[in-house]
Amino acid sequence: MQLLEERILRDGKVKDGDVLKVDSFLNHQMDVKLFGEMAKEFYNLFQHDNITKILTIEASGIGIACITAQVFSCPVIFAKKSKTKNIAGDVYTAKVESYTHGGTYDIIVSKEFLKPEDKVLIIDDFLANGSALTGLVKIVMDAGAKLAGAGIAIEKAFQPGGSLLRSQGVRVESLAKIKSMSGGAIEFC
Amino acid sequence: MQLLEERILRDGKVKDGDVLKVDSFLNHQMDVKLFGEMAKEFYNLFQHDNITKILTIEASGIGIACITAQVFSCPVIFAKKSKTKNIAGDVYTAKVESYTHGGTYDIIVSKEFLKPEDKVLIIDDFLANGSALTGLVKIVMDAGAKLAGAGIAIEKAFQPGGSLLRSQGVRVESLAKIKSMSGGAIEFC
Repeated sequence: MQLLEERILRDGKVKDGDVLKVDSFLNHQMDVKLFGEMAKEFYNLFQHDNITKILTIEASGIGIACITAQVFSCPVIFAKKSKTKNIAGDVYTAKVESYTHGGTYDIIVSKEFLKPEDKVLIIDDFLANGSALTGLVKIVMDAGAKLAGAGIAIEKAFQPGGSLLRSQGVRVESLAKIKSMSGGAIEFC
Repeated sequence: MQLLEERILRDGKVKDGDVLKVDSFLNHQMDVKLFGEMAKEFYNLFQHDNITKILTIEASGIGIACITAQVFSCPVIFAKKSKTKNIAGDVYTAKVESYTHGGTYDIIVSKEFLKPEDKVLIIDDFLANGSALTGLVKIVMDAGAKLAGAGIAIEKAFQPGGSLLRSQGVRVESLAKIKSMSGGAIEFC
């Protein structure tokens, strides 16, 4: 998506350790007009999939997911990061590895909001190692719901998440795919 | 706001300890169509205030804030809950008390996204004891920005947050104000 790629080139900042800082428009300050254009693009990609629910993960996926859900006329569910180890039986749960903060955490979704008759589109802001996305896919599977695919804003294609998920048969559509950021120069696929 | 009050009566669940569970439409599963109607109501209330930024706090405020920001044609900033004690000097910070989880946590907003020339509307899903809202107001003040007020989805008017903030001169507009929930029966102001 040209508009997003241009924005990344203009406002993104490459930091040490292959970190791409896009907090001026994507995940701290959020440009909802840009999100509206991204939502239209996700709609173009998944409009024939009869989406009934959009699933995302807190916190930075929520904004894009909500604006995308307006276009699909369906509700959003966001997976919550849980601190409690003992989780009641009425939630689906998955373990997610955090590369930013280290360690793992649990994500949970109430069983009452994901049903076998649902067709789910996962939306998230970033795809790198794929741990969060793998956790969200597991939750959709555990619910017995159908997975239409995943719509991602920015994929770091030089990290293994995208290939891993696609090799498992998950349809992953990323609006901007970064091939490399070495030396601070962002190159798209 | 009649639509929201009706929805609370229909789908809200009163739990022990004055907890109102609205996770089927507000803060786990999110009804973005309802959010669109709430956004219009916030616009009716603050349309003459020349809002340049909407400020909220992760996670459950983000959805309502983003959809409201579309109507105001301005960006959203969400305050992040920080786990790190040592915070760099380029962020505004405030302490927030958590009544749900106990203890306090820090919230942070990058200084580059809030400027003295900004006119800020704070948006959040709940107002009860007012700790999060007080923290967000402090951040706006620290930035030297102007505060238009706060738009809240649900205020528990039997808890002190709303009165406290209003007595400090903050304009607080709540779309549904709950007078009492004793015995599980929700009564609005």
